[in-house]
Amino acid sequence: MAKANFLFTLSLCLVLLFHGSLAIRQPQPQGECQVDRIDALEPDNRIECEAGVVESWNPNDDQFQCAGVAVVRKTIEPKGLSLPSYSNAPQLVYIVQGRGVVGTIFAGCPETFQESQQTGGSSGVQDQHQKVRRFRQGDIIAIPAGVAHWCYNDGNEHVVAVSVLDVSNKANQLDMNPRNFYLAGNPEDEFERRYDERRDPRGERDPRRGPFGEQQQSNCNNLFCGMDSRFLAEAFNVNEHLARKLQSENDFRGSIVRVEGNLHLVRPPRTQQERQEQLERESGQGRRYNGLEETFCSLRNVENIGDPSRADVFVTEAGRVSTVNSNNLHILQRLQLSASHVVLYNNTVRLPHWHMNAHSIIYAVRGQAQVQVVDENGNAVFDGNVRQGQVLTVPQNFAVVKRTERDVFEYVAFQTNDNAMTTDLAGRASTIRALPVEVIANAYRVSLEDARRLKFSTQETTLTSARPRSGRWAAA
Amino acid sequence: MAKANFLFTLSLCLVLLFHGSLAIRQPQPQGECQVDRIDALEPDNRIECEAGVVESWNPNDDQFQCAGVAVVRKTIEPKGLSLPSYSNAPQLVYIVQGRGVVGTIFAGCPETFQESQQTGGSSGVQDQHQKVRRFRQGDIIAIPAGVAHWCYNDGNEHVVAVSVLDVSNKANQLDMNPRNFYLAGNPEDEFERRYDERRDPRGERDPRRGPFGEQQQSNCNNLFCGMDSRFLAEAFNVNEHLARKLQSENDFRGSIVRVEGNLHLVRPPRTQQERQEQLERESGQGRRYNGLEETFCSLRNVENIGDPSRADVFVTEAGRVSTVNSNNLHILQRLQLSASHVVLYNNTVRLPHWHMNAHSIIYAVRGQAQVQVVDENGNAVFDGNVRQGQVLTVPQNFAVVKRTERDVFEYVAFQTNDNAMTTDLAGRASTIRALPVEVIANAYRVSLEDARRLKFSTQETTLTSARPRSGRWAAA
Amino acid sequence: MAKANFLFTLSLCLVLLFHGSLAIRQPQPQGECQVDRIDALEPDNRIECEAGVVESWNPNDDQFQCAGVAVVRKTIEPKGLSLPSYSNAPQLVYIVQGRGVVGTIFAGCPETFQESQQTGGSSGVQDQHQKVRRFRQGDIIAIPAGVAHWCYNDGNEHVVAVSVLDVSNKANQLDMNPRNFYLAGNPEDEFERRYDERRDPRGERDPRRGPFGEQQQSNCNNLFCGMDSRFLAEAFNVNEHLARKLQSENDFRGSIVRVEGNLHLVRPPRTQQERQEQLERESGQGRRYNGLEETFCSLRNVENIGDPSRADVFVTEAGRVSTVNSNNLHILQRLQLSASHVVLYNNTVRLPHWHMNAHSIIYAVRGQAQVQVVDENGNAVFDGNVRQGQVLTVPQNFAVVKRTERDVFEYVAFQTNDNAMTTDLAGRASTIRALPVEVIANAYRVSLEDARRLKFSTQETTLTSARPRSGRWAAA
Repeated sequence: MAKANFLFTLSLCLVLLFHGSLAIRQPQPQGECQVDRIDALEPDNRIECEAGVVESWNPNDDQFQCAGVAVVRKTIEPKGLSLPSYSNAPQLVYIVQGRGVVGTIFAGCPETFQESQQTGGSSGVQDQHQKVRRFRQGDIIAIPAGVAHWCYNDGNEHVVAVSVLDVSNKANQLDMNPRNFYLAGNPEDEFERRYDERRDPRGERDPRRGPFGEQQQSNCNNLFCGMDSRFLAEAFNVNEHLARKLQSENDFRGSIVRVEGNLHLVRPPRTQQERQEQLERESGQGRRYNGLEETFCSLRNVENIGDPSRADVFVTEAGRVSTVNSNNLHILQRLQLSASHVVLYNNTVRLPHWHMNAHSIIYAVRGQAQVQVVDENGNAVFDGNVRQGQVLTVPQNFAVVKRTERDVFEYVAFQTNDNAMTTDLAGRASTIRALPVEVIANAYRVSLEDARRLKFSTQETTLTSARPRSGRWAAA
Repeated sequence: MAKANFLFTLSLCLVLLFHGSLAIRQPQPQGECQVDRIDALEPDNRIECEAGVVESWNPNDDQFQCAGVAVVRKTIEPKGLSLPSYSNAPQLVYIVQGRGVVGTIFAGCPETFQESQQTGGSSGVQDQHQKVRRFRQGDIIAIPAGVAHWCYNDGNEHVVAVSVLDVSNKANQLDMNPRNFYLAGNPEDEFERRYDERRDPRGERDPRRGPFGEQQQSNCNNLFCGMDSRFLAEAFNVNEHLARKLQSENDFRGSIVRVEGNLHLVRPPRTQQERQEQLERESGQGRRYNGLEETFCSLRNVENIGDPSRADVFVTEAGRVSTVNSNNLHILQRLQLSASHVVLYNNTVRLPHWHMNAHSIIYAVRGQAQVQVVDENGNAVFDGNVRQGQVLTVPQNFAVVKRTERDVFEYVAFQTNDNAMTTDLAGRASTIRALPVEVIANAYRVSLEDARRLKFSTQETTLTSARPRSGRWAAA
Repeated sequence: MAKANFLFTLSLCLVLLFHGSLAIRQPQPQGECQVDRIDALEPDNRIECEAGVVESWNPNDDQFQCAGVAVVRKTIEPKGLSLPSYSNAPQLVYIVQGRGVVGTIFAGCPETFQESQQTGGSSGVQDQHQKVRRFRQGDIIAIPAGVAHWCYNDGNEHVVAVSVLDVSNKANQLDMNPRNFYLAGNPEDEFERRYDERRDPRGERDPRRGPFGEQQQSNCNNLFCGMDSRFLAEAFNVNEHLARKLQSENDFRGSIVRVEGNLHLVRPPRTQQERQEQLERESGQGRRYNGLEETFCSLRNVENIGDPSRADVFVTEAGRVSTVNSNNLHILQRLQLSASHVVLYNNTVRLPHWHMNAHSIIYAVRGQAQVQVVDENGNAVFDGNVRQGQVLTVPQNFAVVKRTERDVFEYVAFQTNDNAMTTDLAGRASTIRALPVEVIANAYRVSLEDARRLKFSTQETTLTSARPRSGRWAAA
């Protein structure tokens, strides 16, 4: 009996110990990349707001822990306003669909969008505020850590925006947890629930939460909530009743709210502004970026990579690639991030390659493809389909190959380096081309003739069509 | 009985497990910032020396673990000499009180303070040594990682100096433990005791310590102690008896020793030197820092931020702010640190703001203020008074507001970025000013009129007086 | 009985807990530097290949965990080809012995070594490939993270090459485990076995391994193994039979294979090429490195530091030091690494010093010396002999002194900073020289005369002969 007791206690200890070590492993401050298996994931958290939806991927998943990122997708209805907030990580946002305006707030910079005395606002008083920028489908928007931003859907269709937050970026001096700091409203944080998973092992219970750990929504979540309303009244030089409005108590609209009527902004008429922004973008590399820093206050932070005419790589019958990095969007040098937009036509192979200096986080915009991701042991940590709406991480240095069958596959890849570099394993600009033929022959134990075939048969770079073509196998 | 036994054992296991996980959590190499509560702290360790006192804050406290810093306060009596040492972290020192000289040793740089043959030292032999710099109340002294330094109080009052060591700085390739390496004496390390707290969980016992883990003070602590005295004799080309003096055995004076007589240094007469240094400081931005690197050996590393005439922000009846960053003290670009000196008059509000790219470690020099620090959930992780002599950390991105009542509040804030940036939430250069009025109205659910009040009522930046004034509430 | 039971259970819990915490401590993502003792180590893992041997040091050893590096030694027989691979860490390779050619592949760069139509290869078809560089004894070769490379021994003696991989480098965004990604063959990874040590605590078992955790050598390890052979056939535009050759199944030659006959490479005749490379090296600092970046594709990555005529420091009767850093090999700015080659004659002291901004990993090329390494508490964490073939890590800021007796001691030191700086504690360019005489007298409690002896007696920098000389002790 005593022995049974002992064994039982021992096994309990073991179980607890095991749990303990697992629990402690979680909050690794830097990415732990022992990823034996990666899955293509859909968002597993969904927050309904008054005028939209916020969906997020669990940042504790192995692939995101390894890459040190968090991924969020926001859907904003027409007339939806995403409340101003900032986060502890720099982020890139890709606009999957829709159009609207975005304001990124650099406090201290001048309010350069101003109404003249003739054109006062609805109530006859002139407004002035910082520059707002238009965005549209295919845009990448760059937002530094700690910079507040808001956006508004002034179009007719839903805006769908996918963001990757680089929490392992050196700009984030807090820990690896993604955090949103809201300036208004009372929104549930899309990552909040995941904190709890991590915090539990420490046996603590936040008294501000209910018995099941859920966020008490009657409470107040924005930055003003933790401040004395008297101090706020003094700081804003208003009465305390109005100051308390800043705390947005009992605001259940979430982080995306509906604007009544039309949102009045000071800005150039759409066509004029777009022409202006078009000009700025086109002249971006030439005129603005001259080795000296752009003025901080006029730093351009939007670039379109969805437009086919903008492609950096184009292979007839195979597809195209557009890239935004610190060479064509200078702010990315601060963010240490870049992105690519890729369209693979049907029956196309994205040639096998690896990312030399970055993780790559793929979001599938449209269609599907077969993808294989290979680790340093030659094992496929992913071998399957990636479909529209899914996210897949390709860790730095892991090899990857993609192939479409009947569908076109469109995706955006977010990279954790401002000048992400890839090396192809096949094609005209690849490792095999760089190797002497006799090294190939000896390395792969093939004849010199076969070595030449491996080296010279594929003429394309990046992409190649896999459609049967005349003479395809002739050379082999 | 057996059951009770089992339950007791189980609970013990749980307790141990919990302790275990806490113990393991401690040596997190990067800051873990799950800070639910921050306290304003006074030093909790005190080491008496022959001619002064070294006080330190426990670097294992959550707020310091999050910020990745260690804080020390030294009090040096007149004629006190702080022995040469270096540490694994770059540091900023603020001189709270007193005056003296500091030597920062860049080995390989020339000995530029030289006696001519006419003015030989007390024994008739000429000395020559590296530049020494005067310091006085209000100075910030920047000391890179691994650079040895010493200082001497040649004034009439005690020197009080507060240092912040940035152990999470990239210049530190060792772990997150602050370490001092002494070149002379046999000082007890002010952080030594805290290592033990961390080391214990690994169950090791250092044979060089007593049964209760205390440092055996009869031993030898400086760098020469671990070297063979024969090797030292050969290296210094002296006899072994003298070489053994380097090891300072049985030196119980601690790290601050008393100089007998007056310390003779080669240096320009005080007024001449000060005039020179004054000139250097004033011309600092214009002449010296021209985009090219200053010569390493003449790198200026002292800047006064206490002087009222030096203020960067000044608001009548409210107070002033002086900032030192890599723009006015170039060495800070290497250290990735900056600092501000702030004086709030009574009844003043430091407008609510957040630090975009740095932690801020506040040391209260004089008086007291009410402070609120708010996290991403809108919770006040600190809400209380900060008093003279206390330290409070404001983590990156957390919002903070300060308000004085009857007292003047003077503090210095050390920041973990060479160009720390803040965003105000209220005032003329704030987020609310940057937002369109209609966004404010929709975000906070207030009328357009109230939105304009929130946006335009406060005309000051940074500081505002909270004294009742005529027409204060008139606008609201 | 029940009590004994309880105590036994409790002690078991304690033991388990202790093991648990040890197990968890291992995969610390950043170096943990509580090194109470460092050992001079020989490699403890050996992999025999067809034409050579790969030996590695356990990267989990405390000193390597602290420095964040992994060390490997490769011996390549004449006609041995080291298969192309890349790793997740930048590395420096020192050629201890032999000569050969190395190819570092920058995909996308042009194939600049080309055969004209007249001089086609053995089969009459012209080859063209990227530049290959000659290397010889005393060379440092710099290889960035993620850059594939191969090398070939075309000499008559064995090539011996020691590599230090800086896994804690910011270029590595994966975790701290060193990883090699092979493009060909089926090699056992030299670090693979050590993963298992780390992985075990998590209780996982890799199904691809045998019951004792060994790698199943019948499997396939290179990057192509995880990809569908159909995709490979399409990517390389060859038939599937040939594509499968890329996967190198059942290739048991290891990572160093024997080339049959002579390896035919396109390259200038040896003397002509060497003259060219000689020129390039000599003019390296002057012509090529002008503040602007060298073209990425022609970046020089080899520099000889073994040649006595290249010495940066030379002391008659004592020895010499050659250093390669980002000032004379520009690529090191990207790698954040540097290296020194040191020869100490017999009866010589390498003056005591510390590394201000880098760890130093010493590989003993020849002979032996007594070495002492001292931590911040004045304790010698190493005090013993370092012999040919051993590795010793000197952590950042730790003090170190070396002394030879009868043997010449030759070593190469790899440093984790592209401009590693040391401060000497004795000699003409040292801390003691920088200090005022009276500070020395007060710090070490010696007379002014003795202080002057300590300061001025040694006239050399870096090295001093310890041979009895006339008048040696006279001054003391």
